[in-house]
Amino acid sequence: MRDLYGDDSPIAAFATPPGKSPLTIIRCCGKGSLEAVSSVFSRSEKLKQAPGNTVIYGWIIAAGKKIDEVLVSVFRAPKSYTGEDSFDISCHGGAVTGHAVMEALKTAGFRDALPGEFSFRAFINGKLDLTRCESVMELVCAKTETGRENAIKRLSGGLEAEINEIKKMLVQTLSGAEIFLDYSEDEIGADEDEIAGILPAQDKALNALFRLKKLSLSWQRQRIYQEGILAVIAGRPNAGKSSLFNLLLKEDRSIVTENPGTTRDWIEAWLSIEGIPIRLVDTAGLRESSDPAEKIGIQRSRHLLEEAELILYLIDGSRGITAEDESFFTAQTGRKPLLVLWNKADIAPMPQPHFFAAKTAVSISAKTGEGIPQLCNAIAQTVRRQTLDAEEGGLQDASIGSARQKNLVETACTALEEALAMAQEQEPLDLIAPMLREAVNALGQITGEVSTADILEEMFSRFCVGK
Amino acid sequence: MRDLYGDDSPIAAFATPPGKSPLTIIRCCGKGSLEAVSSVFSRSEKLKQAPGNTVIYGWIIAAGKKIDEVLVSVFRAPKSYTGEDSFDISCHGGAVTGHAVMEALKTAGFRDALPGEFSFRAFINGKLDLTRCESVMELVCAKTETGRENAIKRLSGGLEAEINEIKKMLVQTLSGAEIFLDYSEDEIGADEDEIAGILPAQDKALNALFRLKKLSLSWQRQRIYQEGILAVIAGRPNAGKSSLFNLLLKEDRSIVTENPGTTRDWIEAWLSIEGIPIRLVDTAGLRESSDPAEKIGIQRSRHLLEEAELILYLIDGSRGITAEDESFFTAQTGRKPLLVLWNKADIAPMPQPHFFAAKTAVSISAKTGEGIPQLCNAIAQTVRRQTLDAEEGGLQDASIGSARQKNLVETACTALEEALAMAQEQEPLDLIAPMLREAVNALGQITGEVSTADILEEMFSRFCVGK
Repeated sequence: MRDLYGDDSPIAAFATPPGKSPLTIIRCCGKGSLEAVSSVFSRSEKLKQAPGNTVIYGWIIAAGKKIDEVLVSVFRAPKSYTGEDSFDISCHGGAVTGHAVMEALKTAGFRDALPGEFSFRAFINGKLDLTRCESVMELVCAKTETGRENAIKRLSGGLEAEINEIKKMLVQTLSGAEIFLDYSEDEIGADEDEIAGILPAQDKALNALFRLKKLSLSWQRQRIYQEGILAVIAGRPNAGKSSLFNLLLKEDRSIVTENPGTTRDWIEAWLSIEGIPIRLVDTAGLRESSDPAEKIGIQRSRHLLEEAELILYLIDGSRGITAEDESFFTAQTGRKPLLVLWNKADIAPMPQPHFFAAKTAVSISAKTGEGIPQLCNAIAQTVRRQTLDAEEGGLQDASIGSARQKNLVETACTALEEALAMAQEQEPLDLIAPMLREAVNALGQITGEVSTADILEEMFSRFCVGK
Repeated sequence: MRDLYGDDSPIAAFATPPGKSPLTIIRCCGKGSLEAVSSVFSRSEKLKQAPGNTVIYGWIIAAGKKIDEVLVSVFRAPKSYTGEDSFDISCHGGAVTGHAVMEALKTAGFRDALPGEFSFRAFINGKLDLTRCESVMELVCAKTETGRENAIKRLSGGLEAEINEIKKMLVQTLSGAEIFLDYSEDEIGADEDEIAGILPAQDKALNALFRLKKLSLSWQRQRIYQEGILAVIAGRPNAGKSSLFNLLLKEDRSIVTENPGTTRDWIEAWLSIEGIPIRLVDTAGLRESSDPAEKIGIQRSRHLLEEAELILYLIDGSRGITAEDESFFTAQTGRKPLLVLWNKADIAPMPQPHFFAAKTAVSISAKTGEGIPQLCNAIAQTVRRQTLDAEEGGLQDASIGSARQKNLVETACTALEEALAMAQEQEPLDLIAPMLREAVNALGQITGEVSTADILEEMFSRFCVGK
């Protein structure tokens, strides 16, 4: 396993983003890293003798030249993130200094860390199970407060504990089954009590299955909190699409727009609505016209509506529902979640709900801001209704945090269901036991207790460098 | 002075840039900051008892909820950057987590730090003189290795030491003059030896003036290393402008392009040529045409040439110097530094230098890369020739690092020159002494020994937040 990511040699990586700022942190660790850092540090003896969890002030020196005035946080094995001797070097920020220090470290024997290599070492050294490793990256990528809270729960071990508990139940079921196998085939006796212990095994397996199903369902909502959904504002010209877009943007500042430099033909921004990351797109810029050059706009608009996971359809309340609106509704019926927004409610009150024929309608005014809280609530409810997870806000203590975990939970469910079906059919225990073992094995893979090089490589290589 | 930036109350700021990365560092300090951090920390007693320069692991907790798993580096007054109790909180990176921790800190009593407030406190508490404070920001903004090395020299106190030494010489001159004043007006006697001590005073003042002038001259080059220069590639269509631009970019990766998201009508990038930051602009995209819509391109091209501090004029060697090239040279003669680049030298060798009538010409091939090292050297030499600083590479130990310092050095020079001129004219000492005092005062302002609230506010408010 060790040679998956090479070895335990000294590695270094930037742990903070590039940019003008007071500090740049370089994280380094590995066998021999203490000597390597000391060799380019002005107070090398002090550093070599430093106990763990202390901070040493000094200069990085290379080829007799002062490179930077730094603080080195010292962590001694095994009390560090990776479990190895480890150092956080706090340099001055900016484009140049961190790189000069990194060069000095490389001369001293460090190599660039691979993506996820620090977390990989933490896992290998038994500091974090796989669910916690994954939650670390999840935390870094969190788009909203709720996303962060979910990740923190997994980082605190909420999922790990639930998986281990379910696994324990299955192992008990399995050992019950195996004792029974032993009993029937071998001389090694199981007394009356032990046999009595097998009886509740089926109950345990059913309970485990129920909890696994619940976990599996949690992923739909967790995924939405992690990745967000695409909501497209549509409607006839002058329905107020851009006004609504700008209003929602102004009210919500919790998500910084990602990739602000990206040029697109439409306007979009990320919002956080009740903790759900919403990628909101305004199609107002996509003019519909007979001009051949503008046909491209119509195509793009259609493409966005195809991709959308939620359509916010604006009606110009002052004009009422037009034939154009009706034909849009007809085309979209049953296709994807759609909210009808009756705009300009400040001058034209919304008709009775039955007017909208079972479609959810919200009365708003993009001009006065009236109805916006109700709109946000309707968006959040519509998104949540698409998930089968019953918990409000997805804040249960144990929930699935990655597709990898989800797939393994489902593998366990399938094996367990099969085992239960076989038990129902009174199949011989020596056929049932392997199914139970498969379920236990899948759960072991979630936490990393059971793991293969391929799985680990696949997982950690998706991490960012320095983590 | 203290109330300039408010007070010594607890302040907090992000010390690392936003972005997806393993870590976000929040720096905080101030009176009561230990209690404030402890109040949102899972191991508050451990933190309260932590000695300086130690790292404490724990969780940030707010309203009973786990916010993030962090490492808190503890610095105890006066052994910290600001001289106050101070904490670097190492949180998980990403868009959300740092902000959640910051919110918790604010609830605990911290306020947002003002730009430069940490350095301001370091100055007020006698931890750094003003030249070192300025060098900290200079380091963060450094664009090249040379820029970083210059800043490090000032951070190490190179300029501070030189200023203090010059000031000492002036104070000695001044006290010599004042003893003389005393001697002639008062009873307090100066014996023969003391009078003899006044004699070398003029020499000291001249030496001080020489060293101040040398410092003053250093600024021109230092400024170039800090801010860089704008170099524009010009030439007729198909002379190879874009090829040269791309080639130079490929050879040099030392500067990350700033503001990569900025949309411009021309292509530009930052290069480091012999440590000089060069903002290189390719005008190739600016088509010159009779089409009215494209006239804007010509205007922009002209405007860039107006702004340029160096013009790299490409000649298509395979066609030789055309009438168009000649008219460009005529228009530019004596206006600004210009290098003639004879391109396509691989197929058309460059004529003898006299052919270019005193203009510096370099033979290159943007296709094969031949002549590029010579071109870089010619660019660096041309830029350096524009500065009066004689030192190669601007690497003398003491040099000026900001316009503020430069202005004060010049104030000192002017006062000193006046004093020397008055001494030459045998003016009375009680007229000369105030001029010397003015020079000493100006030097004191450079290091901050003498300071006014206005100067400090002006200076620190240009710093970035968190520094």
